[in-house]
Amino acid sequence: MSRTMDSAPRTVWIDPDDSSSVLAIEQRLLPFEYEEVSIRTAIEMAVAIEDMVVRGAGCIGVSAGYGMYLAAREARGLHGPDGDEHLRRAGAVLEASRPTAVNLSWAVQRQLGELIGIDDGEDRLARAREVADAIADEDVAMCAAIGNHGLEIIREIHERTGRTVNVMTHCNAGWLAFVSHGTATAPMYAAFDAGIPIHVWVSETRPRNQGARLTAWELGQHGVPHTLIADNSAGHLMQHGEVDLVIVGSDRTTVNGDVANKIGTYMKAVAANDNGVPFYAALPSSTFDPTLRDGVANIPIEERDAAEVTNATAWFDGRQIEPRVAAPGTEAVNFGFDVTPARLVSGIISERGIAEASEESILALYPEFAASLPSPEQ
Amino acid sequence: MSRTMDSAPRTVWIDPDDSSSVLAIEQRLLPFEYEEVSIRTAIEMAVAIEDMVVRGAGCIGVSAGYGMYLAAREARGLHGPDGDEHLRRAGAVLEASRPTAVNLSWAVQRQLGELIGIDDGEDRLARAREVADAIADEDVAMCAAIGNHGLEIIREIHERTGRTVNVMTHCNAGWLAFVSHGTATAPMYAAFDAGIPIHVWVSETRPRNQGARLTAWELGQHGVPHTLIADNSAGHLMQHGEVDLVIVGSDRTTVNGDVANKIGTYMKAVAANDNGVPFYAALPSSTFDPTLRDGVANIPIEERDAAEVTNATAWFDGRQIEPRVAAPGTEAVNFGFDVTPARLVSGIISERGIAEASEESILALYPEFAASLPSPEQ
Repeated sequence: MSRTMDSAPRTVWIDPDDSSSVLAIEQRLLPFEYEEVSIRTAIEMAVAIEDMVVRGAGCIGVSAGYGMYLAAREARGLHGPDGDEHLRRAGAVLEASRPTAVNLSWAVQRQLGELIGIDDGEDRLARAREVADAIADEDVAMCAAIGNHGLEIIREIHERTGRTVNVMTHCNAGWLAFVSHGTATAPMYAAFDAGIPIHVWVSETRPRNQGARLTAWELGQHGVPHTLIADNSAGHLMQHGEVDLVIVGSDRTTVNGDVANKIGTYMKAVAANDNGVPFYAALPSSTFDPTLRDGVANIPIEERDAAEVTNATAWFDGRQIEPRVAAPGTEAVNFGFDVTPARLVSGIISERGIAEASEESILALYPEFAASLPSPEQ
Repeated sequence: MSRTMDSAPRTVWIDPDDSSSVLAIEQRLLPFEYEEVSIRTAIEMAVAIEDMVVRGAGCIGVSAGYGMYLAAREARGLHGPDGDEHLRRAGAVLEASRPTAVNLSWAVQRQLGELIGIDDGEDRLARAREVADAIADEDVAMCAAIGNHGLEIIREIHERTGRTVNVMTHCNAGWLAFVSHGTATAPMYAAFDAGIPIHVWVSETRPRNQGARLTAWELGQHGVPHTLIADNSAGHLMQHGEVDLVIVGSDRTTVNGDVANKIGTYMKAVAANDNGVPFYAALPSSTFDPTLRDGVANIPIEERDAAEVTNATAWFDGRQIEPRVAAPGTEAVNFGFDVTPARLVSGIISERGIAEASEESILALYPEFAASLPSPEQ
């Protein structure tokens, strides 16, 4: 595969042959089957979001933008208040499809802000398409910027060592969770596209195996050399000099640089620290929460269904199954995320550049956070 | 379940109702089915060892001792050199069944040393039974001693905190791998039997899931409260004060206290260290290798079949299957063990007592190692 990430497929897009249809990768079937689904109404898009046909913060927001484009198609024959009413109803349905996804609400409100009050249905539709594409393009540009900043870290290692750069990642902060590039993966794709020899250690990321399923698949699609490992192998590889740097994503980042990310991230960070391996979090600035310090104490951690631990998601006899892997009757707990303290984070790669994991350095890049800081004792 | 570990079933034993049969727990079916198999000849025992019906260092050695008892039954009608010849052949078959298991060869040679030269077949058989039972009883006593030493650590924590002691373990260094008690689990059973409230965090131990399958099962059999976690959750629990101590086993231990154990042990140790959680290895003195220092550099790490990482062992539709969990085509590496440096080990619990993880402290408990030390530069 010789195409660069800039020309690679996206996770969701308007069908170039039929503008009445939005196409999306059916992510529930990955990695065992690749299928593109055609979504033709705003309601269908809401169902696709709710059922996790599309998933990942960036991808959901962009999908909602396209959902509003489909709503504008439905309303193309309606004038003025009738058209506005249809858009508002569609927006409410879309916002309800994953209530906690902030990008979703943000995209719907942005479309409504642009479209409400446009009298002519065709004008409204044209504007909806521009806005939806803009939301998608901005997501791509943001991830690409993260990639370009991170690329310099990988390039420096390659120039210093003169050999293949071994990057480790965890979970899937990849292009499947956005529109293209991803966040943690963006520097890897940028380095690969720039001809820097890289190899990625993909940790499987139990219990949901997003590494084994999604990250391994998407790196393979782009031709990036990679090897899957059990999460337990990460420390051994670091001890033996097989890891040059770790790059993970972030679900929430405090103003002092504590990083909440998929469960197991903290153990990779502490092992990296023990072996002098640089550990970076790559994230869009929307994950910063400038009102928080001390993420270990203050970021609530979601407990998920124990069945994800007692069972595995697997592929058998041509279908996806969730067989039991633990002793019968055994009870489990399942934490979705953990928090890596800033002292273990070498740097934070966002679309604005690379900051140290410290309040001073983050505020230098994001001076607007100064207005939202927690009180000193928090 | 109110029975104590001293009255609990063993992994292998002579059928009390039929001394021509050795019974063993069929460990390949655990935890989904419990079955005892009857083994009637030395060859059948060799096959049971080779096929891993019985597994674990201690259990294999004891099984080989009972295999020689079965050989002596076969030879009960043979006199002098004919009987010796039969025993030697049986011993060779047993030793070949798992060539790298040192306990196996040791048990066979111990039986041969006792039995060769006994002229009368019935006398030989009686002695073989005594020796086989002695090997088993010594294994039980060794594990019980480890349990009693480790019990004091748990008792001290309980007396200091006044609440349930949360112990974390990894993999299965439990009674299934020995005859009874186990090593890492022995202090937990001893504490439970002594009425000290304990709860065990069982990490699943990908890729082979010995924690989820075996440790969870055996703790459940004995009634010890426990909860299964993904390996990735260990650090999060430690960060939040939910782990009072970690106890793991060891496959090989250097004279300065580096511990080679199941892959992922090192990451638990480094996370424990980061959170001030005591980290112990419990092991029989046979795992010490006094000829080695610097285990990270000098202990070779077995690479196992990548299919253990790309697939899971699971139970589905009433049978055991190994379905794929990783993206199709993804390649994996699978390290069997890692090495935890002594600086991360709070102490080593062996049948002789508790040593610090230092050469000085280990030599104080094992003065005979002084004759085998590596040269200083090693």
